[in-house]
Amino acid sequence: MTIERVAIIGLGLLGGSIGLACTECLPGVQTTGFDIDPETRARAAQRGLVGQVCDTPAEAVEKADLVIFCVPVGAIPLAAAQIAGSLPAGSIVSDVGSSKQTVSEALRSALPGHIVIPAHPVAGTERSGPDAGFATLFQHRWCILTPEADADPVALSNLRSFWEALGARIEIMDAAHHDLVLAVTSHIPHLIAYTIVGTASDLEDVTRGEVIKYSAGGFRDFTRIAASDPTMWRDVFLHNRSAVLEMLGRFTEDLTAMQRAIRSGDGDALFDLFSRTRDIRRSIIEMGQDDARPDFGRADHGSESDA
Amino acid sequence: MTIERVAIIGLGLLGGSIGLACTECLPGVQTTGFDIDPETRARAAQRGLVGQVCDTPAEAVEKADLVIFCVPVGAIPLAAAQIAGSLPAGSIVSDVGSSKQTVSEALRSALPGHIVIPAHPVAGTERSGPDAGFATLFQHRWCILTPEADADPVALSNLRSFWEALGARIEIMDAAHHDLVLAVTSHIPHLIAYTIVGTASDLEDVTRGEVIKYSAGGFRDFTRIAASDPTMWRDVFLHNRSAVLEMLGRFTEDLTAMQRAIRSGDGDALFDLFSRTRDIRRSIIEMGQDDARPDFGRADHGSESDA
Repeated sequence: MTIERVAIIGLGLLGGSIGLACTECLPGVQTTGFDIDPETRARAAQRGLVGQVCDTPAEAVEKADLVIFCVPVGAIPLAAAQIAGSLPAGSIVSDVGSSKQTVSEALRSALPGHIVIPAHPVAGTERSGPDAGFATLFQHRWCILTPEADADPVALSNLRSFWEALGARIEIMDAAHHDLVLAVTSHIPHLIAYTIVGTASDLEDVTRGEVIKYSAGGFRDFTRIAASDPTMWRDVFLHNRSAVLEMLGRFTEDLTAMQRAIRSGDGDALFDLFSRTRDIRRSIIEMGQDDARPDFGRADHGSESDA
Repeated sequence: MTIERVAIIGLGLLGGSIGLACTECLPGVQTTGFDIDPETRARAAQRGLVGQVCDTPAEAVEKADLVIFCVPVGAIPLAAAQIAGSLPAGSIVSDVGSSKQTVSEALRSALPGHIVIPAHPVAGTERSGPDAGFATLFQHRWCILTPEADADPVALSNLRSFWEALGARIEIMDAAHHDLVLAVTSHIPHLIAYTIVGTASDLEDVTRGEVIKYSAGGFRDFTRIAASDPTMWRDVFLHNRSAVLEMLGRFTEDLTAMQRAIRSGDGDALFDLFSRTRDIRRSIIEMGQDDARPDFGRADHGSESDA
């Protein structure tokens, strides 16, 4: 493990969590950080998200072995351009974005001659900003690396060790395949959640108050995801357009089939789908990717959380 | 509060929780219960879900002041017919079903001359069966009563007091309006969740293993709801068809607009929706209808739950 100085550009949920996880898991590694928002920088310094909060991105990266962009994917071209003149030769350039093909091209184009290895830790919460991060965010979560075929093997090995030290499990994947997989496991779920929350907010014959009161029937689960950062998610959909549209097409075909089954009273078709879908949750829990407790464990805290 | 003997027909998540909540909150009330499945009856007796598990529905109801059907809504007509000859005059007949218009008609038609007051406690988890129930399920949750305009006021008051004693807050609502409200706060969210889990399971270019591994990106939230009881949910969609189809139409219109925004690269339309949807979650948390902790509090238990 030869990464000794990590620069984090963007000090929100992901950037802050990486900084805190470094302090906890890699105490010998020095961290610097920058955020475009002065208030975020001030708060990051107060919370100690990184060892040193810098006033410019150039200052943050000037001695870095590894630079990680933790900004919305649409902001990566500009953020990368801002460090191009200060980045040491031989540093690894990476990111945490949820779409990888366009990010990979943007980083390579802005930072020619540098070692670019895009990454995506599949972890997060609905919170954002400098108060949202925590050191254990990556524990037992997958981090997908999407190196080009000719990527430097030592750099790749070092980046892998870095993420493993933060608690993550590593998968190497082609960027195009990553974008397709994440379209179905992350982007479409977010799009659907945002949409149904919007639909429910705009009804004339059911009030917003009623939607809120009776949300425990299932709706409230969707509102958590739909509270995620709007800028980050706008950029994800703009940058992973074709995979999202492909997966959305599959979903709407299947939804139309269910609509037809309801209209025609085809109980067998409904029962067939509804009984196929339990297994996948069981597998997710067995793989350590969700809480086994009923209702995500919310029920264990009923009276506390319902204050 | 003059309800002294409660008969519970169906001893799964809801029936079992009512029985346990009675023991805890109304120790003077006697409970009897029946389930059509002998194994469920045996397990209900072991867990003490009700004071007395009976071998026939007739025996369970023969001294009851209040009978509560806790069976899938499609099973209500038969279950009601089975007790018609044994039900004391003056008993209140109620239920816990998620659709109210068809249930109300079925109960009235099967039990003419009895006091029918349908009910729907908006509470549950993804678990089902006699091991799933717990006494605090109804704490701080809403229970919607849908009496006819000419409902007996004393019976209505007694049923309200019963549910309040179990920890619920009461709302009185017209059955047709209930069905519309729950279509959007519960039925459509379940339909969407079942569908996306089905879609993700059936892809050729993304494996089931990948869907499971990277489910923490958002997908895993949907799998919880999609692990709910298939029979119960089949019946909900068959019995609340018109309200579900109406709300599904609104949702697919909105989803199509988002699809168009993604295709045309209209970031402003995406940002506009994504920034409108945070408020509703904040309101749900303020109203005590969800856990305020990030990620439903799952993150607090990261290492335990990921065993």
